[in-house]
Amino acid sequence: RHGEVELEDQVAVVTGLAWTEVGGELLTIEAVMMPGKGRMTVTGNLRDVMKESISAAASYVRSRALDFGIEPPLFEKRDVHVHVPEGATPKDGPSAGIAMATTIVSVLTGIPVHHDVAMTGEVTLRGRVLPIGGLKEKLLAALRGGIKKVLIPQENAKDLAEIPENVKSGMEIIPVSRMDEVLAHALTRMPERIEWEEPATTAAATPDDDAALPTAH
Amino acid sequence: RHGEVELEDQVAVVTGLAWTEVGGELLTIEAVMMPGKGRMTVTGNLRDVMKESISAAASYVRSRALDFGIEPPLFEKRDVHVHVPEGATPKDGPSAGIAMATTIVSVLTGIPVHHDVAMTGEVTLRGRVLPIGGLKEKLLAALRGGIKKVLIPQENAKDLAEIPENVKSGMEIIPVSRMDEVLAHALTRMPERIEWEEPATTAAATPDDDAALPTAH
Amino acid sequence: RHGEVELEDQVAVVTGLAWTEVGGELLTIEAVMMPGKGRMTVTGNLRDVMKESISAAASYVRSRALDFGIEPPLFEKRDVHVHVPEGATPKDGPSAGIAMATTIVSVLTGIPVHHDVAMTGEVTLRGRVLPIGGLKEKLLAALRGGIKKVLIPQENAKDLAEIPENVKSGMEIIPVSRMDEVLAHALTRMPERIEWEEPATTAAATPDDDAALPTAH
Amino acid sequence: RHGEVELEDQVAVVTGLAWTEVGGELLTIEAVMMPGKGRMTVTGNLRDVMKESISAAASYVRSRALDFGIEPPLFEKRDVHVHVPEGATPKDGPSAGIAMATTIVSVLTGIPVHHDVAMTGEVTLRGRVLPIGGLKEKLLAALRGGIKKVLIPQENAKDLAEIPENVKSGMEIIPVSRMDEVLAHALTRMPERIEWEEPATTAAATPDDDAALPTAH
Amino acid sequence: RHGEVELEDQVAVVTGLAWTEVGGELLTIEAVMMPGKGRMTVTGNLRDVMKESISAAASYVRSRALDFGIEPPLFEKRDVHVHVPEGATPKDGPSAGIAMATTIVSVLTGIPVHHDVAMTGEVTLRGRVLPIGGLKEKLLAALRGGIKKVLIPQENAKDLAEIPENVKSGMEIIPVSRMDEVLAHALTRMPERIEWEEPATTAAATPDDDAALPTAH
Amino acid sequence: RHGEVELEDQVAVVTGLAWTEVGGELLTIEAVMMPGKGRMTVTGNLRDVMKESISAAASYVRSRALDFGIEPPLFEKRDVHVHVPEGATPKDGPSAGIAMATTIVSVLTGIPVHHDVAMTGEVTLRGRVLPIGGLKEKLLAALRGGIKKVLIPQENAKDLAEIPENVKSGMEIIPVSRMDEVLAHALTRMPERIEWEEPATTAAATPDDDAALPTAH
Ligand SMILES: [Ca+2]
Ligand SMILES: [Ca+2]
Ligand SMILES: [Ca+2]
Ligand SMILES: [Ca+2]
Ligand SMILES: [Ca+2]
Ligand SMILES: [Ca+2]
Ligand SMILES: [Ca+2]
Ligand SMILES: [Ca+2]
Ligand SMILES: [Ca+2]
Ligand SMILES: [Ca+2]
Ligand SMILES: [Ca+2]
Ligand SMILES: [Ca+2]
Repeated sequence: RHGEVELEDQVAVVTGLAWTEVGGELLTIEAVMMPGKGRMTVTGNLRDVMKESISAAASYVRSRALDFGIEPPLFEKRDVHVHVPEGATPKDGPSAGIAMATTIVSVLTGIPVHHDVAMTGEVTLRGRVLPIGGLKEKLLAALRGGIKKVLIPQENAKDLAEIPENVKSGMEIIPVSRMDEVLAHALTRMPERIEWEEPATTAAATPDDDAALPTAH
Repeated sequence: RHGEVELEDQVAVVTGLAWTEVGGELLTIEAVMMPGKGRMTVTGNLRDVMKESISAAASYVRSRALDFGIEPPLFEKRDVHVHVPEGATPKDGPSAGIAMATTIVSVLTGIPVHHDVAMTGEVTLRGRVLPIGGLKEKLLAALRGGIKKVLIPQENAKDLAEIPENVKSGMEIIPVSRMDEVLAHALTRMPERIEWEEPATTAAATPDDDAALPTAH
Repeated sequence: RHGEVELEDQVAVVTGLAWTEVGGELLTIEAVMMPGKGRMTVTGNLRDVMKESISAAASYVRSRALDFGIEPPLFEKRDVHVHVPEGATPKDGPSAGIAMATTIVSVLTGIPVHHDVAMTGEVTLRGRVLPIGGLKEKLLAALRGGIKKVLIPQENAKDLAEIPENVKSGMEIIPVSRMDEVLAHALTRMPERIEWEEPATTAAATPDDDAALPTAH
Repeated sequence: RHGEVELEDQVAVVTGLAWTEVGGELLTIEAVMMPGKGRMTVTGNLRDVMKESISAAASYVRSRALDFGIEPPLFEKRDVHVHVPEGATPKDGPSAGIAMATTIVSVLTGIPVHHDVAMTGEVTLRGRVLPIGGLKEKLLAALRGGIKKVLIPQENAKDLAEIPENVKSGMEIIPVSRMDEVLAHALTRMPERIEWEEPATTAAATPDDDAALPTAH
Repeated sequence: RHGEVELEDQVAVVTGLAWTEVGGELLTIEAVMMPGKGRMTVTGNLRDVMKESISAAASYVRSRALDFGIEPPLFEKRDVHVHVPEGATPKDGPSAGIAMATTIVSVLTGIPVHHDVAMTGEVTLRGRVLPIGGLKEKLLAALRGGIKKVLIPQENAKDLAEIPENVKSGMEIIPVSRMDEVLAHALTRMPERIEWEEPATTAAATPDDDAALPTAH
Repeated sequence: RHGEVELEDQVAVVTGLAWTEVGGELLTIEAVMMPGKGRMTVTGNLRDVMKESISAAASYVRSRALDFGIEPPLFEKRDVHVHVPEGATPKDGPSAGIAMATTIVSVLTGIPVHHDVAMTGEVTLRGRVLPIGGLKEKLLAALRGGIKKVLIPQENAKDLAEIPENVKSGMEIIPVSRMDEVLAHALTRMPERIEWEEPATTAAATPDDDAALPTAH
């Protein structure tokens, strides 16, 4: 069953497409959230670049928490564990980035992920989707695994010319350039933005600090 | 006596089946819980992938604490040590994952484990049981060790065709696909679910945060 | 689109010029700020010298916080993540230092960065701009990427003699010797200095400690 | 005098038998306890497996603290340092485990150790004594060192057939299978069990959490 | 301009003389102080021995804080970053020790450093100046860089016999044996000693603890 | 002057005898104490075994703090830095152990060390002095350095037969077996024992915990 599509929509279970030692492959990425202190654990025989892509994905989500309906204090009161099963296989590279980001949004919001969608693409801190390599092998793995819809980076759309017709006709292949598009396709519903006011603290600011520091947006 | 079945049902002593340098082997996995601060220690000459499988097993248990009757604050008030004896032998791989998860459930709930059950299978964060390699050698080690019942991954059931008849007739071999099944076979009684309400804190949420963040399930 | 100029002015997105395994290249440097505890995360397949240049850039900014209109307690209440996308490419060297410093000023102040400016230069703790190597290859990469204005170290101005005329006529090349100049060219507006008085604490100083410790300036 | 029996009964000085680069050897294991914060330090040119055996020994003792008359808060208010002298010799392996556990019980209870007892055996988290290798060389070292009584693992009793008669007649050799037996032979008196009630905390448990979490036993 | 004398007296900018891969060289050492928690950061492509010399220099300054007019709580309320620019060049060895100590005194007191002084010498915890190697190459680098005054270890004075006359006549070369002499030459004014009384705490000392612990001096 | 006797009695400056890459050598060991949080820093191009010997020496002193007149809370309110100058020379081995312990006693008590005493010997946690190698080379180095009195391990006394007469007649050579003897020879006065009662805390001990836990002694 592994290397195949999930059977039902679940929270925090996302199908990524990545390169491993054995070629293009479906990677299931899963996460759980627990009462805790803001720790993040990542496991699954991951090499440094894939670990960093989880870190970037997490910061993307944290920095846009309100857009996803997540109250910021949650990040200090929960622990999150992101795991990529099949521990015997080493995994590397940035191309599971958008799958990581989707997993993290899902686990923090509790919104399930469509089970028949797979995706590949590096993610930036601002949620842009960067191109990846090995598109053909990844799409073949998706087809073998029974995937119905694949999200690929917009900048890889030009590479579709070299993909066999039977692959392109067997799945819906959707180029995306931002995480918003990814989430619209992957989540069963979109999160709703909330407002949040930081609890007041008694600062000793002088009168001319009225030019309050903006949060990045 | 090592490499043989335990003589009585105990808390937090589980027999796993794994590959080591010397082939298929019974691994005793044991744990203790101590007053502490939420630290987890893992020892036993373990390589990284086996260490990660303990981490994944622990997060599976923590994220489903209420299902196992465990009050969440316990995780911050106790230390847990998981140890795999026979320190002279290096141990690796994800195939002791379900044995790790069973050990952790047992140590946290105090429910004993049937002494004549052995098990092999990778565990995911959601408690799914993934297939493993070297089934034949592991079953032979179980037989030699006096095991009466062996839990194997459902996806390895197809490999039973290649297992000698005397092995299959000498032990009950049970394919499982989820941790719930593993625990039903391994624990002397099933844990009971509890309710838990997080202590109230004075958050500064604005009116439209009524869409409260769901915990993952 | 990568290796090309950004399309609009954004907060905390800066184009650096650096050497990688594949020669002179445009590096996008991005940052986000999040509610937190003063942690800084750096990712992007960075080698030690580039990581250290981010550390130096951050200390330059922190030590001049008031000049940039940043209230010092902010540094303990926010986490910042600096990321250099294209995780598959290892990156090293100090020559992205002034781009790092610009990114950090932008993310902490919320002031956008001109999208068609690129820059190269090592930064010191005091904001001086030190010379770099590979100027020609870096300028060629900038030209290919559609950059309109490039900031280079003053001490590299002598190397412009060896740069082809078409490169020099295709872009505005501006030698700079201090971060103040860099920020004046890169930010859409200059930050305004604030005053700040450290909250009083009940120290046990004896009468002759009136020679209060100066902060460095 | 090193490699020889201690001259008097002391607290937290135990003679182990282990393999080093130079063959079977007496190892003195010593510990001290200090006001502190629950830190444990281990030194003595120890390789990882021996370090882990100290960790397992410590958790065995902590998890059975009440049986040894130790009030649990002590573990957070004291630091313990375990040291194996003769720093020039690298030391490895699990076979000093029961000596480590005896040292830790002694230092925490203040009960002295018989000076003319030596011991060898791996320890598990539950205090079982596992077999070791190199029994003959270890017994020869004990004889040379003037030891009167040697504790060996029960599962190594079968190997005594191959031990020269003069070694067996020169010392009392006692097979043991549990730490209780080890401590009965090694300590000058047995610790007495105490009761301990965890200080109440105001938890928000709901009515059906009456199935209070048991501590492991 | 690098490898040359600074143009003006600044706080926490000191010129050291050291060996690098390319021979004797001027190293600019700079530091900044920031509101913080007592953390020290060191960067600049430094190998372990140079990092340790910064650590020793910092402890020399901290242990004599009152002599330098520094209130001890400052060390817990500020972060200090010491950086050696030119990140592309690896740097090692203890011979920048007195320059490090001078930098740290300057950044903590706010007293500027004479811009035309360079120095070389290992520093001890008590502020003694130990001899260094490569004196000739270091003096040549100083001369090339426009330095007017060079501080060298007293124990290297005997090596001046082998230094070319034009080097010795081009700069003032001053042997020193203690940090007090170094600071007298390097700082634009000497720091003034302060008194400091540790805030009282309610200790449970018994009557005979009147032999109060002396601080080292 | 290095490799020679100190000129005056100082606090926390001790002359050890050790092996380095260049043979037997005098090592100056120095320490400073600073207001802090109980951190210990060790520097001086030290390899692991020498670092561990400092750790063992420090625990010996901490565990006998009252004997040395040191109030236990001091260890949490001060930082100590132990440094072995001449950073260019790597240093290893346990034979500077008793010199380390003497340095730490001196820095914590403020009692000066006789400047014309050198010493060599491994130290245990209980203050026993263990034998060392290379006695002849170490004594030759001491003689060359102008040392008047050398402390050596009692168990090395038998090796004095092979030491040239001029070495033995040129210095007083004193075999020692315990740290008490070392301190009696090295310190200008012996520390005085103090009493100390741990501040009461409101524990929830039950009636039968009257068998209060003894501290090790
Ligand atoms: Ca697979
Ligand atoms: Ca704003
Ligand atoms: Ca075995
Ligand atoms: Ca919910
Ligand atoms: Ca690129
Ligand atoms: Ca000032
Ligand atoms: Ca020995
Ligand atoms: Ca119970
Ligand atoms: Ca230079
Ligand atoms: Ca004093
Ligand atoms: Ca020397
Ligand atoms: Ca006692």
